[in-house]
Parts: sequence; structure tokens; C-alpha cells
Amino acid sequence: MREAYIIGAGQTPFGAMPGESYRSLFTDAVDAALNSVPDGIDAGEIDEAVVGTLGVGGRQIGLSGPAVTEHAGLHGIPSTRVENACAASGYAVRQAVQAVRSGMADVALAGGVEVMTDMSGDAAKYWLGVSGETEWERLTGTTFAGVYAQMASAYFDRYDATPEHLSQVAVKNHKNGAKNDDAHLGFECSIEDARDAPVVADPLNLYHCCPTSDGAAAVLVASEDAVGEYTDEPIRVAGVGAASERVGLFQRDTYTGIDASMEAAAEAYDRAGIEPDDLDFAEVHDCFAIAELLAYEDLGFCGRGEAHELVDSGATELGGELPVNASGGLKSKGHPLGATGAGQIAEAVKQLRGEAGDRQVEDAELGLTHNVGGSGGAAVVHVLEREVGR
Amino acid sequence: MREAYIIGAGQTPFGAMPGESYRSLFTDAVDAALNSVPDGIDAGEIDEAVVGTLGVGGRQIGLSGPAVTEHAGLHGIPSTRVENACAASGYAVRQAVQAVRSGMADVALAGGVEVMTDMSGDAAKYWLGVSGETEWERLTGTTFAGVYAQMASAYFDRYDATPEHLSQVAVKNHKNGAKNDDAHLGFECSIEDARDAPVVADPLNLYHCCPTSDGAAAVLVASEDAVGEYTDEPIRVAGVGAASERVGLFQRDTYTGIDASMEAAAEAYDRAGIEPDDLDFAEVHDCFAIAELLAYEDLGFCGRGEAHELVDSGATELGGELPVNASGGLKSKGHPLGATGAGQIAEAVKQLRGEAGDRQVEDAELGLTHNVGGSGGAAVVHVLEREVGR
Repeated sequence: MREAYIIGAGQTPFGAMPGESYRSLFTDAVDAALNSVPDGIDAGEIDEAVVGTLGVGGRQIGLSGPAVTEHAGLHGIPSTRVENACAASGYAVRQAVQAVRSGMADVALAGGVEVMTDMSGDAAKYWLGVSGETEWERLTGTTFAGVYAQMASAYFDRYDATPEHLSQVAVKNHKNGAKNDDAHLGFECSIEDARDAPVVADPLNLYHCCPTSDGAAAVLVASEDAVGEYTDEPIRVAGVGAASERVGLFQRDTYTGIDASMEAAAEAYDRAGIEPDDLDFAEVHDCFAIAELLAYEDLGFCGRGEAHELVDSGATELGGELPVNASGGLKSKGHPLGATGAGQIAEAVKQLRGEAGDRQVEDAELGLTHNVGGSGGAAVVHVLEREVGR
Repeated sequence: MREAYIIGAGQTPFGAMPGESYRSLFTDAVDAALNSVPDGIDAGEIDEAVVGTLGVGGRQIGLSGPAVTEHAGLHGIPSTRVENACAASGYAVRQAVQAVRSGMADVALAGGVEVMTDMSGDAAKYWLGVSGETEWERLTGTTFAGVYAQMASAYFDRYDATPEHLSQVAVKNHKNGAKNDDAHLGFECSIEDARDAPVVADPLNLYHCCPTSDGAAAVLVASEDAVGEYTDEPIRVAGVGAASERVGLFQRDTYTGIDASMEAAAEAYDRAGIEPDDLDFAEVHDCFAIAELLAYEDLGFCGRGEAHELVDSGATELGGELPVNASGGLKSKGHPLGATGAGQIAEAVKQLRGEAGDRQVEDAELGLTHNVGGSGGAAVVHVLEREVGR
């Protein structure tokens, strides 16, 4: 299997930009990725593109892949849209890795984009709802926050955790996001702010939920044969794992863990030949604060039922043993659905290159990204490793 | 690059089945594909799934990949939805080929599904419209038939062709489809029927347009290392090509050809090391009759401006020099958008195995499938070759 390397990555700021379009945002992200390649690259050297988007809001739904890649100046190349709800661009990056490993492409672009803030509240609720199961969740009235609220309730019932732990996740991620110029909600919040916010879906309050964001991100993947043309300090895709689970929460064996995350992580660790302890940092999918706690356990950062103790210990803060969501995470950095997975990888590239500024993780050499679709119907995990003097 | 082989393929009948669901249809197609593997296969041996669907009608939009693969009994494996409008499952098959060639899967399932007939006429028109360009085509009032009508008008203006040639395509494809039990409109039509039908979008009449169908199809792709476990007479994926083009017709240099089809075909021929003359049959994307004429030229079956002469000569009929759409094509077999590309390959597999019954192409050893997204924003071409006594 030939190796795949990340040679560049970039993103737009995440935020409320209702005046922007899919095309304009995606083009900005592609430009950022191209400009981040150390030894330079022309758009014409890209062999293939994969675009993750949920198509929220009913803009260019059919053919949104070619629509945005053509606009970004990548004329004529194969361009495929992939969708796995909020894991769309995590899967896009995985597909770019496959394209490169297959020998059918030397350089592939994977990205994602979403425009969410030019909709009415009802439309936003509808489109978020489509990430859940349609017939027996959305159409029976469950909101997407309601799905994660059920997971939180189950977790609190089973383990000695409380909403205070969710608020701790929010405080940590806002503290990190305040150091990220690209963050949608780039401000700090106090534990009181996070504790006393209005309820969204009990036990989740406003600070336990990520915002609805616009944005785009893009990642450039090169084969081991081509990588030398672009950089001698690439990021190796050491391991990739992906897995599915029943889409409806009610169809599953457990509400207090996501099987797809566990299986994806196990595969990624196995392919990379590492253990969770080897990681220097992680970007995990905290669409709701409970999701970050579940991720700690599903990804093996701690034992089952111990996630609330891990966040309480401070180990996942910047400067802690395993900083999680140094970017601010979905909570503070923002969550433009289709852009999130590629955006996590853009953050990981910044960290591995030592370019993360005030939120830099010290000696970051090995990082993980974890992107979840819906309430766990799909998950994809990448293990990324910095190579120096290749 | 390790070789990829098709070891099985199947489809549901295409037609009006509004009582069926995405899940039920996809499961039937997967079962048909599994049952078609000569030496047998268990669902558990499938490493990965790729599902093409446009998500017409707003059913399970987010996570429709995992939703249908889980229902089909393919639990836990990576499942990605891909979308390139009507080329969704052609791209899904290409992605399965990449998965296998990358070494990340030994056996991959690619399929597609669409349920279109349980919608109101307005909804169907909306969802078809999303295959075109949104802002300056659909929202300004152009229907999807209207887009192809513009291409037909331009073709008639430029070359010595008339609507009579479109009707000849309809008569040929209905004659073939009448021999296909899976066809949606499996009846013959006379040239008078096809000539005198009500206008849909001038110069296209009802018989120049494919129907709105329900259905699903699935294809199993195995690596060269694994193929021997399943059959000693597999179908080799000799060549794959894919390309994009500007989504809006008005953005292009020409209305009388589809650049993406030309580029995809050139790549597929090149990788297969063949010329169009070597082909024994082809399944091409005749969403409208004009699209079949353009395909003849874009795929190199004849020179530019000669397609109307080719259909007139009878060369593309069953028994002709190069039978095109022996299945009945989208016109007669039907067009459940996301299922069409995989359905074309299921037909090609039948032909290459000599299992096509009354519509069997004699000595079929090398075939082509051509799947177009929208009005040509994306295209994907597969060249498939029968291997005997591998």
C-alpha cells in the first residue's frame, strides 16, 4: 500500500457569513490549502477532488462537487461529492487517501463546505434533523439536540457524572477557541456562563451545543512518489479508520458510547501501529459537550465511565497530558457541517507544523482527528504524524 | 496498481414502486448482487460500501449510506454516500475500484438507490431541477428537460439532424427494453408513437424523455488478490475515466457535446488500452434522446455531427455493429437517478456473462458504461472485460 501524505491544508474562518456562497467559501479554502504547500503547487497539479457537504439549505444540491471545484479553478478533474452527515469531509479526506493509494491520483484535494446561516430557524432545524434518523426520530419530533440529550441523560444515569462536566468541556473549548482567529465563537466563557445558560434540550443548555456556522476547509493529499516535489516535511497519514452504525439511536445496543467511533479508532490505531497514549493531541467531534465525553472513552483516552473525571482533571486542557480540541472544537471554533472534518485536519496540520500560535501544543508530533456523522451513524478517525527531513 | 474485478452485480426491477423504501430497495439489490457471485459470498466478507443517491424527495438525506447498508445487513463497515446527480452510482463504482486498488479493501460494494414516484409533480420537478445549475438555471425557471432541449436545439441548428432522429432512439431503446423484465417501460413503441407524443420541452416530446423511476442496483468489486475466492470468470475493470465540467450549460464552450464525457472516455480507453472500435456493446446515458446522440460522438462511436446518421444506419440496434442500450437504456429500462450507473454495470455484467436472454449481444467480451451527472457537470466511464479461465 503506497503511503499518503498531507502536503497542505487550509480553511476559511468559521462563522456567520450568510453573504458568502458555497463557491466563494470553497474557493477561499482551496486557495488557503494551495498557499500552505511549503514548496508551492499549481492548481493544475491536482488530479482529483472530493467534496464533503450535507447541502444544508437546498442550495446547489445536485453536482455540488463539480460546482465548487470548477469555481475554485480545478477544471475538468473528477470531482465527487461525499456525504456522511457531519462527517462528510472526514470521509472526503479518507477518499482522497484511497485515490492516492490506488495509484489513480498523485495529488488529491479533499474539502468540505457548508452555508447554514442564511436560513430560517425552521429550515436550520430541518436540515440538522436530517443528520438523525428520518422516520422514527425526525418525523416523530425529535430534534438533533434531543438525540444527544438522550445520550447525555443515559450517561448521567449510568455514571457518576453531571451537567457540570458538560460545562467544563464548554469552558475548556471556549478558552482554546479564544486563541483561534478562525473561530466562530472565539471568546472565553466562565463556568457560570456555561452552567446557567438557557436549556436547549434538557440536560443540554446553550453552552453545551455547538453553533450553526458557515465555512469551508480543504486538505491536499499526495502519494509517496509525488510528495517530495512539494515538501520535505510532510504530514504522514499514519492510520485511517472508518465505521458505520445504525443511524437511529433507538436501534442501538447502547446510548453511552458510539460503536462507529470505537471501531474507527481501533482500525486507525492498528494501521498506525500506535496506542492512544502515544498521541500528543486530538481534535474530537464535540457537536454537543456530551459527545466530547463519549469521544474520550470511545477513542480510548480513558476507561469506560471515566470521561467526566478526565475533563475534571484538566488533562485535556492546553498544557495537559493530552490536549483535546486546542482549536476550540466544534463548540467554539464552529461547525459548518460539511467543512468540519477537513477543518479538524487543517488544525492538526497547523499543530504538527508548529504554526498554531497561542494554542500550540508543545512538541506536537502525533495527532488524531475524530469526525462523527449524525449521532454516530458514521465515524472516521485519522492519525497524522509529522515527518522531518524526509 | 492492483487490478479490480467485478464478481457480482444485481438490481431490482426499475419502475413505479412508491410503497418501497430506500432501505427495502437497496437490500433487494444487495441480495441480487450477492446471489450473482458464482462461487458464493457472505455479506460479512464485504469490507466497504459506497452508496450513490441524489436523495430525491427528502427521505433519509443525511447518512443515507449507513442507513441503507446497515439495513442490508452490512453492519459496521465504512459506508459513504456519494452524489454526482444522475452519475452518483457510476461514481460509487469508481470509488469502490479505488478502495480495492488502494489496498484498504479486498471486496467493496457499490450501489445506488432512488425512490422518485411518491412525490407530487412539483416536488419531482424540483428534485430533477437540482441536477442542473441552481442559481441561473433552476431558479430562473429552466426545467431539467429544458436544459437538454437547448442542447437538442443547438444540435439541430448546427447539424443536419431532426427530431425524427430522437424518435429513432426512442423506438430502438423501447424495442430493447421490451426484452428486459426489469424495465420500467418495457414495451415497444412505433416511430409514429415517438413522433406524435405530447411536447415536454420543445423540441423534446414525451418519448424523447426517460421516465421518473424507483429502483436500486449494486455491484461487487474485488481485488486481484481476492477475486479467485469468488469466481474464475470475473469481469475485469479494464479502464475507468471520470471528469467534471461547469455545471451550468451557459458556462460552457459548446452545447453540442459534453466535455466531461469526452475526457472520461479518453481516460477510460487509455487505461484499458483500447479504441472505441474494439467495443462489443455500450450502455450510454440517454436521459433524453438527444443525450444518446451526443454520447455517440463524445464516446467516439462516430465523428462529430454524425450521430444522427449512426442511429439512422441501425448500427446501434441489437444485432448491429455496436449495440447501444441493449437494456432499453434510461428511456425504457428507467432512470432511478442514483441507481442508474450501477444498473448500467449490472446490465454489462449480464451481457458479458451471456445471461441477457433475448437481448443478448453476440460474443460480448468488451463493454462500456457511460453515466452522466446532470447535463454533463460530471461523467464517468467504465470499460469492462470478460475474463475466462482466470
